[in-house]
Order: sequence, then C-alpha cells, then structure tokens
Amino acid sequence: MLGRLNHVALAVPDLGRAVARYRDTLGARVSDPLALPEHGVTVVFVELENTRIELLEPLGENSPIAAFLARTPRGGMHHVCYEVSDIRAARDRLVAQGARVLGDGEPTIGAHGKPVLFLHPSDLFGTLTELEEV
Amino acid sequence: MLGRLNHVALAVPDLGRAVARYRDTLGARVSDPLALPEHGVTVVFVELENTRIELLEPLGENSPIAAFLARTPRGGMHHVCYEVSDIRAARDRLVAQGARVLGDGEPTIGAHGKPVLFLHPSDLFGTLTELEEV
Repeated sequence: MLGRLNHVALAVPDLGRAVARYRDTLGARVSDPLALPEHGVTVVFVELENTRIELLEPLGENSPIAAFLARTPRGGMHHVCYEVSDIRAARDRLVAQGARVLGDGEPTIGAHGKPVLFLHPSDLFGTLTELEEV
Repeated sequence: MLGRLNHVALAVPDLGRAVARYRDTLGARVSDPLALPEHGVTVVFVELENTRIELLEPLGENSPIAAFLARTPRGGMHHVCYEVSDIRAARDRLVAQGARVLGDGEPTIGAHGKPVLFLHPSDLFGTLTELEEV
C-alpha cells in the first residue's frame, strides 16, 4: 500500500535561519519560502535526489505546528508523508485494522493540492504519519 | 553536498508490534529483524520505492536510543540520514561553519558498514542528523 516517501517535515522556529543552515552549511538545494495561510505554515523545500525535506514555520494564529513548537521550541521532526494510490481504500484498510484517522476521517486537500489524511501518532509508535494520494 | 535521503529512523518500544503495524496495516515491505549488538539496536527496514524507514528497538544495556525511549515511551522520530560522497570534507565544511559533530569528530563505522557521523541536533533545529558516506 505504501508507495514513495513523499517528504519528511521538520518544524523550525525561524525559517530564515533554517534556510541558511541547510543551504549554506549543508550545501542543499533549497526552494524559496512558500506561504500557505490556509494550512497555517510557511514552507521551504529542501530538494534531495530521491525525496524532499519540508521545513515548516508557523504562519498565522492557528498554525497546526504551533503547539509542537511550544513544546519543543528549538524545533524537531514533525511528520513523515507516504504516497498511496487510493487514499480512501487506504483509509478503509487502516480503520478496519484499528488505526485512527485524525479529524472527521475524510481526506482533506493538503499543502500540495492533493488529498491527504493524518494517522494518529499513538497508533504508529509516536510518529505523526501523513498519507497523500498521488 | 547532501545526496540522497538514506533513511529516516523511528525508535519503537516493541519491534514485533511495529512490524505488524507497518506490514499488515500499512501494507509495507518489511525486512526480518537484524540485531546489531555493536550499535545497541535491533533494526527492521521498511523498504519504500525511493528510500527506507528504519525501525529501531533498543538492544543491550547501553543502547543509544534508550534515553530517547525513556523520554518518549511510545516511540517517535529519532533521526534522518543523508548521503554524502566525502564524509571528511563534509565534516570539515560543517565544523568551519559552526556545526558540531557528536563524539570526537571522527567518522565511525555505522550500522550499514559505512563511515558515518552525527550532527548535534541543536545545530539543526532539533533534528538529529546523520551523514553517511556512500
């Protein structure tokens, strides 16, 4: 069911400093910042050969990463995202096996314009896990 | 400087339960467990199309993930590993720009038999970051 690793998301308190670190110190290819007010984040993509890292900074008052950064102010690993070909089939299989989908259980449109859902981290050993239909 | 994402490592308290979840619920291809006593972990590889997830369970008395699981007993995202072509050149560039290498600063032989080093998570916004020479 799981396809490619679409991305790993890292929450950072200061995107400018993070960009400088990934671009200048680690020598990575880094995108321009992209504000996604409807998702409550500003994102920068660190483009690797086989996948990408998403650096997330809170945007606005109801950012979904605000609570995470309140707990871990220096930042940290926030979630992983796997690709699936049929997100509703994936959801049904997961729910049948006792995994919980966050929210009302219906896919929403994610930051890449594709259907996504998030699985409860307690059902995946503490790792917040996103599925994205591609 | 950064090449491919080699792996994402997730610490889990119970590898048997984690294998069942990733294989049976998420439908992923999962390796047999591999005990690495010299690294203090037992590892299972979740093979994705473009990279892999490493599920880590502590092994022995001085496991490098024991403290992490003591803080976060349900498990969680532990580190990311990027490939580099010349780990000493990477190290020198990092140190020159103020990033700290854990240990004595010299690469060690990692779980895949290749030279590795770890960067201090405080210098990468809370993300423990491994570099592996390939």
